[in-house]
Amino acid sequence: MKKVHNFYAGPSILPEFTIEETIKAIKDFAGTGVSLMSVSHRSKEFDAVMREAETLFKELLNIPEGYSVIFVGGGASTQFAMVPYNLLNKKAFYVDSGVWASKAIKEAKIFGEIAMVSSKDKNYAYVPKGYEIPLDADYIHITTNNTIYGTELRKDINSPIPLVADMSSDILSRPVDVSKYALIYGGAQKNLGPAGVTFVIIKKDILGKVSRPLPSMLNYATHVENGSMYNTPPCVDVYALLQTLKWLKAQGGVKEMEKRNIEKAQILYDAIDNSKIFVGTAQKEDRSLMNICFVLKEEYKSFEEDFLKFAKEKNLVGLKGHRSVGGFRASTYNALPKESVIALVDAMKEFESKH
Amino acid sequence: MKKVHNFYAGPSILPEFTIEETIKAIKDFAGTGVSLMSVSHRSKEFDAVMREAETLFKELLNIPEGYSVIFVGGGASTQFAMVPYNLLNKKAFYVDSGVWASKAIKEAKIFGEIAMVSSKDKNYAYVPKGYEIPLDADYIHITTNNTIYGTELRKDINSPIPLVADMSSDILSRPVDVSKYALIYGGAQKNLGPAGVTFVIIKKDILGKVSRPLPSMLNYATHVENGSMYNTPPCVDVYALLQTLKWLKAQGGVKEMEKRNIEKAQILYDAIDNSKIFVGTAQKEDRSLMNICFVLKEEYKSFEEDFLKFAKEKNLVGLKGHRSVGGFRASTYNALPKESVIALVDAMKEFESKH
Repeated sequence: MKKVHNFYAGPSILPEFTIEETIKAIKDFAGTGVSLMSVSHRSKEFDAVMREAETLFKELLNIPEGYSVIFVGGGASTQFAMVPYNLLNKKAFYVDSGVWASKAIKEAKIFGEIAMVSSKDKNYAYVPKGYEIPLDADYIHITTNNTIYGTELRKDINSPIPLVADMSSDILSRPVDVSKYALIYGGAQKNLGPAGVTFVIIKKDILGKVSRPLPSMLNYATHVENGSMYNTPPCVDVYALLQTLKWLKAQGGVKEMEKRNIEKAQILYDAIDNSKIFVGTAQKEDRSLMNICFVLKEEYKSFEEDFLKFAKEKNLVGLKGHRSVGGFRASTYNALPKESVIALVDAMKEFESKH
Repeated sequence: MKKVHNFYAGPSILPEFTIEETIKAIKDFAGTGVSLMSVSHRSKEFDAVMREAETLFKELLNIPEGYSVIFVGGGASTQFAMVPYNLLNKKAFYVDSGVWASKAIKEAKIFGEIAMVSSKDKNYAYVPKGYEIPLDADYIHITTNNTIYGTELRKDINSPIPLVADMSSDILSRPVDVSKYALIYGGAQKNLGPAGVTFVIIKKDILGKVSRPLPSMLNYATHVENGSMYNTPPCVDVYALLQTLKWLKAQGGVKEMEKRNIEKAQILYDAIDNSKIFVGTAQKEDRSLMNICFVLKEEYKSFEEDFLKFAKEKNLVGLKGHRSVGGFRASTYNALPKESVIALVDAMKEFESKH
């Protein structure tokens, strides 16, 4: 098996520990003689997995009392609808910081009036700032990391109204003051596990304030009350997620992750900023630690395919930028080792020396 | 690793082939050097998995033109809401053949008027029959197999209005005349794969007939138009499902499955009917080939725990009946080998000889 440097934006690199432990459990789950894929979710062994995932998630993010953590299917895209379904009575305020944020807005409009601020004017190269949060809105919705554009809001903002955040692509990459949020959600397939499971951190007292009837599966209360076991959960995906949480704890938790992520990003941003042919696309003050976007300068644009090919020959995969930005995107999630970033920087320098 | 006979109702036994192939792909997916858990769903290798799953599913069930097969997250429980969300204008007709059917009814009531027929009067020990389908209903909803009670409707009924079926627990266990159905759905975790992926077979011309605005993820059209790739699909679960489809084809398809399932069920029902201490709970004409429910006769009831313990010592797991029926339930899905049924029958006879 070839050794590959995995820069995919998601699903994306996971710790070797997660992969190995999941394989072991698919062979024989918790000594039951039954595969993790074939074991009842009502067995005491699987129930222990779900409970540990919830507990460890709370521990790692230092989640205060009064919050629940649930694991559901359907991805963040389903949350785009569930958030307004459960929380929007009349009006909500959305910060449009990219395509994913604007998809969330599209769904919310089905349920009420939406006020918003946007950075679309500069193709989302920055995170909107300095806006006033309307006090008559039921909540404000932000997207903390914008995978496509490589921008990130790394600060927990203060909001006078309930703060809802899509943290799909930067959850557990840094400490977060959860007490500032009413709800945080995200797909697992960046920093947590395989695609198929979605986490939601919910401040319990925000629920029960809309009058519309909620289908059970779209009602956060259902999952909170049933400990994510109202229906059959995505067992393999939850198990893999738990392994990543264990790995993260063993590495030193979110503070250590933040330190490593800053270091990795610094190496790559320095290389970009010192390059004669590459240039970053995001405004510097909003640069993401998770997705680092860069393009070839105008006069070198014709070499784009060449660089991707060159990188692939060096086993650097997943570097193609999203079509709406073009160029390249290196996703540097928690599990990506520094060695992969160095391999990329070396390849960039070598490519530059040849052109 | 001990050898276990797995009678779980779901998640449940899967072919060894599915388990082995999934493990291989989690180690190194399609020779990419990247784990199946860490590969982009937009990679050509994963796209090929999704397309093959769709094609093979259609082939195995002999699905006619005009139908789509999609794979989504959220389980059958989410379908309980999606069906009426997408199809119910004024009124729908539901056949209440068990707890799962009645959960589907609960969700449908949010979206319109529900007419129904039920077998709750006898604790769902039979499948309702001989009812008239109201012509003014938008659709009729049935549950073909009732896991908790061990009843099954093994015949494709004729309906003058669109026929919707939850086939979570008997899909691909027998040939189905899909042309008689408008929509068939089910969680994968019985005959198909791990929990986390849900299949939906949709006759395309039934869509677009409701006027309410549909959130994207809850709109069947979204998934049909995007080939189940509107958002990140549950990749590992879809991959495992595909392996089961491949296994099923290699075994001879649904006709062969039906033959084996009839044979396995016959062995166990014969043992029950010839037993002095055990008795079946479902009415004979509605007995399921997938879930075989039985209890101890009144005078032996006190030995219930003893039998479960005795069975466990013989590595027969997952036999505890659902609390609403009690006793025992042997789930005999496609992947359960005849040897496991024989092992159970032997244990029943041995237990009987001792009591």
